[in-house]
Amino acid sequence: MDNRPIGVFDSGLGGLTMVKKLAEYLPGEDVIYLGDTGRVPYGSRSKETIIKYAKQDAAFLMGHDIKAMVIACNTVCSVALDSLKESFKTEIYEVIGAPAKAAANITKNGKIGIIGTVATIKSGAYEAALKKINNDLEIYSTACPLFVPLVEEGWICADDTTALSAASRYLSELKSQNVDTLILGCTHYPLLKDVLSEVMGKNVHLIDSSAETAKQAATDLKAKNLLNDKSLQGDKNPQGDKNPPSNQTTGTTKYYVTDSTTNFSTIASKYLEQDVTTNVEQVNLDY
Amino acid sequence: MDNRPIGVFDSGLGGLTMVKKLAEYLPGEDVIYLGDTGRVPYGSRSKETIIKYAKQDAAFLMGHDIKAMVIACNTVCSVALDSLKESFKTEIYEVIGAPAKAAANITKNGKIGIIGTVATIKSGAYEAALKKINNDLEIYSTACPLFVPLVEEGWICADDTTALSAASRYLSELKSQNVDTLILGCTHYPLLKDVLSEVMGKNVHLIDSSAETAKQAATDLKAKNLLNDKSLQGDKNPQGDKNPPSNQTTGTTKYYVTDSTTNFSTIASKYLEQDVTTNVEQVNLDY
Repeated sequence: MDNRPIGVFDSGLGGLTMVKKLAEYLPGEDVIYLGDTGRVPYGSRSKETIIKYAKQDAAFLMGHDIKAMVIACNTVCSVALDSLKESFKTEIYEVIGAPAKAAANITKNGKIGIIGTVATIKSGAYEAALKKINNDLEIYSTACPLFVPLVEEGWICADDTTALSAASRYLSELKSQNVDTLILGCTHYPLLKDVLSEVMGKNVHLIDSSAETAKQAATDLKAKNLLNDKSLQGDKNPQGDKNPPSNQTTGTTKYYVTDSTTNFSTIASKYLEQDVTTNVEQVNLDY
Repeated sequence: MDNRPIGVFDSGLGGLTMVKKLAEYLPGEDVIYLGDTGRVPYGSRSKETIIKYAKQDAAFLMGHDIKAMVIACNTVCSVALDSLKESFKTEIYEVIGAPAKAAANITKNGKIGIIGTVATIKSGAYEAALKKINNDLEIYSTACPLFVPLVEEGWICADDTTALSAASRYLSELKSQNVDTLILGCTHYPLLKDVLSEVMGKNVHLIDSSAETAKQAATDLKAKNLLNDKSLQGDKNPQGDKNPPSNQTTGTTKYYVTDSTTNFSTIASKYLEQDVTTNVEQVNLDY
């Protein structure tokens, strides 16, 4: 049993999809979230800069006595994971491995597509993870730099002409290769799933990297006896392997951001369908 | 006469349009450019964060003994200009005043549109500058957050379906108001001018904020006797009021960026049609 909180960080708002999924699978756990909203996005920056920012993010969370760290940013996991593992000694959960496993399990024709930021796609991290599971898989990947701004603009409905136009261009190659499974390799992308499904066809499986990772973290923390009192008392059988997961949370979440709290509070409150104002604080990561 | 360089800064790459225009109007002047590519974009951040970053950018340039500072970022000029003027004592040129004057001069029907980032539009800086010139002007403004990512993706041709779709949505209100002049209130936007012209109609004047500001800086530096030896010797009648301006530069330009130099070098070399590699250096603004 371990009553310390779970730390989660992302380059900005995208990691809220992870917070939501963690609350479903681990409703009793306390969470500390850091969103580097003052420097988002990471996906188009150099490897060296991403590593530097990621280390500052992780160091901040480590200063809050966490029992585990969930890296909710695909870009960071793709290019900075080794550096973080070298520098920080805690349970680390990343958003590449579990989605890759889910995709390899669900594909019927062995053709898997990956979409993500420029840095994520350039890293080849998903390809490596998939090839390690099954070297015979056919993998096709495409960077989609306009998807994050589209999500932030709220142009995400299935009939949105701009989003459909961008998605049709980005996905044309993956579609012509007949992939039957598509890994959404960025925490923003699940918000675009209606558009992606419209373009790819309803029969293509969309793999949500946050959902798969939260599920894996829940299972693993339980197996390692690292859940907290509330998790153990509130539910004798924690949610790690339940489907559907719980909707009732007893854990607390504290949010830290590096830009002003106003915009974050508005979007987080709307997305999480709860008041996120008194538990948000702006911090300086010593830069 | 003043042989010190002119300092130029922008949140990222957009200010290269200013460098190009300065080289046309002041081909003999030496320029030091800072692009905060490690934290771009500024336009969606809070006022406080923009001021903080802008002060760090300006302080860096002031450390290089410049004779004048050109703020090539509309977002910074819109929300941080007063703070910079309070903190730094040098000639400061900003991208709001000159374009506003040009727009007020060129409009026939008195209806002017302004497009820019969220922060620029929210600040009301252009409206204030225009109303000061002529209180009877009718002004319509719209934030276009997707334009910068579109430019960075290179989706900028007049027949680009995604860019046309986004531009049609953003500009519909301005178009229905029959503005005859449109201020491109972001240094990225001139690169989208074919698309903007396609949507607005060929008869609408597009005002390039970099071009107008460079022209004003040239005229002013000449009037204040602040041009350098090369400017004075190379041309007894410097370019400030010439049309068309010169294409032959004798001044040098040194570039500093806060992310890796590779991506910057590639784009700058292409855009400026010259080799920008040996004169680019990555720096740390103490963050």
